[in-house]
Amino acid sequence: MRGLWLSDQRLTFRDDLELPLTTADEALIRVRVAGICRTDLELSRGYYPFNGILGHEFVGEVVESPGGHLEKGDRVVGKINAACGDCFFCNKGLRTHCLGRTVLGIVDRNGAFADFLTLPVENLVKVPTSIPDEAAVFVEPIAAALQILEQLQISPSDRVLLIGAGKLGQLVAQVLFSANLDLTVVARYSLQREFLEQFGIRWIDEPQVRAVEMDLVVEATGSIAGLELALSAVRPRGRIVLKSTYRGQASVDFSRIVVDEISLIGSRCGPFSPAVRLLEEQKIDPRPLISCRYPFDQALEGFGKACESGVMKVIYEM
Amino acid sequence: MRGLWLSDQRLTFRDDLELPLTTADEALIRVRVAGICRTDLELSRGYYPFNGILGHEFVGEVVESPGGHLEKGDRVVGKINAACGDCFFCNKGLRTHCLGRTVLGIVDRNGAFADFLTLPVENLVKVPTSIPDEAAVFVEPIAAALQILEQLQISPSDRVLLIGAGKLGQLVAQVLFSANLDLTVVARYSLQREFLEQFGIRWIDEPQVRAVEMDLVVEATGSIAGLELALSAVRPRGRIVLKSTYRGQASVDFSRIVVDEISLIGSRCGPFSPAVRLLEEQKIDPRPLISCRYPFDQALEGFGKACESGVMKVIYEM
Repeated sequence: MRGLWLSDQRLTFRDDLELPLTTADEALIRVRVAGICRTDLELSRGYYPFNGILGHEFVGEVVESPGGHLEKGDRVVGKINAACGDCFFCNKGLRTHCLGRTVLGIVDRNGAFADFLTLPVENLVKVPTSIPDEAAVFVEPIAAALQILEQLQISPSDRVLLIGAGKLGQLVAQVLFSANLDLTVVARYSLQREFLEQFGIRWIDEPQVRAVEMDLVVEATGSIAGLELALSAVRPRGRIVLKSTYRGQASVDFSRIVVDEISLIGSRCGPFSPAVRLLEEQKIDPRPLISCRYPFDQALEGFGKACESGVMKVIYEM
Repeated sequence: MRGLWLSDQRLTFRDDLELPLTTADEALIRVRVAGICRTDLELSRGYYPFNGILGHEFVGEVVESPGGHLEKGDRVVGKINAACGDCFFCNKGLRTHCLGRTVLGIVDRNGAFADFLTLPVENLVKVPTSIPDEAAVFVEPIAAALQILEQLQISPSDRVLLIGAGKLGQLVAQVLFSANLDLTVVARYSLQREFLEQFGIRWIDEPQVRAVEMDLVVEATGSIAGLELALSAVRPRGRIVLKSTYRGQASVDFSRIVVDEISLIGSRCGPFSPAVRLLEEQKIDPRPLISCRYPFDQALEGFGKACESGVMKVIYEM
């Protein structure tokens, strides 16, 4: 089969890959559409030492399933953390934090930039027919955005600042705005601002951020500058959600965190079912974020495109 | 009057100071006993550019009060943040975070290492006669320790690790242990361990800290090494309370915080009334932590002593 292969930070497009083997509780999925995420770009730059097939945002079709709730032909999206089911965290119900987990296209498990992938049946969620592939491929990052609302109780009167309006930031913006929160987004580029305006979401420029004013700040740039801006914008006793990973160590003023009793909350993968529901109810429409579509044979060109600035979501059509 | 005066990181003992003037809502307090805190040592080293009389842990006697709940002769302890009563945070009930606050012996307000001090009447809490001065002088740091329980709901089944068993750490240990939490303390020095053993509190050595195991970690060393140990010890979705301030910037692995969805929570000043109650109920006895008592005329010697390693609490008797 075909696949976009990462090895020692070198990407190659291969058409000689073996079809993946399923285990007893896994389904074989034919990928229909896949999306490129910032994490994929970071992985290709060595953020984490992954070798194998990249990709974790996809919508696909069940080819083979050991049973359970799935049948051949079902259209599905997939949670990316495959848990052992047995460790302390699995037993606590925290399967995304399973100590022995593999992660689709990220940790010890081949990913979605390929004709086929495997995932445990319990990871797969059926997609209602009303949701087109080009929207369903966003379920994974929409779930990541929704994770903020899983973790935190946010009040209607809370002033919420989102820093960063890139691929993930736009979805976080839509999720928070559509939940009727009092949202302002720090958006650096005109393209990002246009998207926000299209959805009626208020944006400001970095210099307009006032110090010590925000009840909640969501940091979605993954840059130290974004983290520092968050720390300056948040009010005493306020909260900062870290929604992006950072490369290497970051240095911040921890005394500010102590003296002003600020909370920093890391946030990663989120719940798929509500993400699918929001798409079904048309509360969120991520499709305008698609900058380019590439047939999978041009996977390398598409990946290069996704690295360019000013490009939002790039998707592969298999 | 006499006072320990800090000016440009130079401490002098003076006996030529003017009696402080009270405003309409302030009481004049004669200091009976005062305690030296790590913050005082840090201030003397330039952690914050404070000039004036140091000291914020005290028990005193009302000399003059504009009324309210206090009478002349009442024995009192005092909350150290004097709020404006008018700003956004005061109106939200977050008076310890008042934007215009002065802080006893720390920010724009002369402190307790003197014969007399002034504080707003609302800051003063009467001390029951059953609590001796040498215990009452610990109300401020006990309140700071209790702040952890004000901010967080901690379950009986949570495994709690306290890193640091110095002056504040010992009180945090007593507060958490006496609240029946499942506490283990990382204690570096034999003196610290002896104190913990005296109260029946379990301690371990740094190398015994296991990775990714603790539900809650309280960092009370104020050192980067302590912060790093906390990050390594906490489990995914666990919480870290930062109970000590840090000098300058600190560099940590923020990706760990994001990927493992860890929460970092800054924690500062706490509630006085429950601290007084715990002393009255003899749930906590901080007096064994007193290493040395100095008559106030030997304030400089006492301050020097407090800087030595292996010394716990040093108090001044006026």
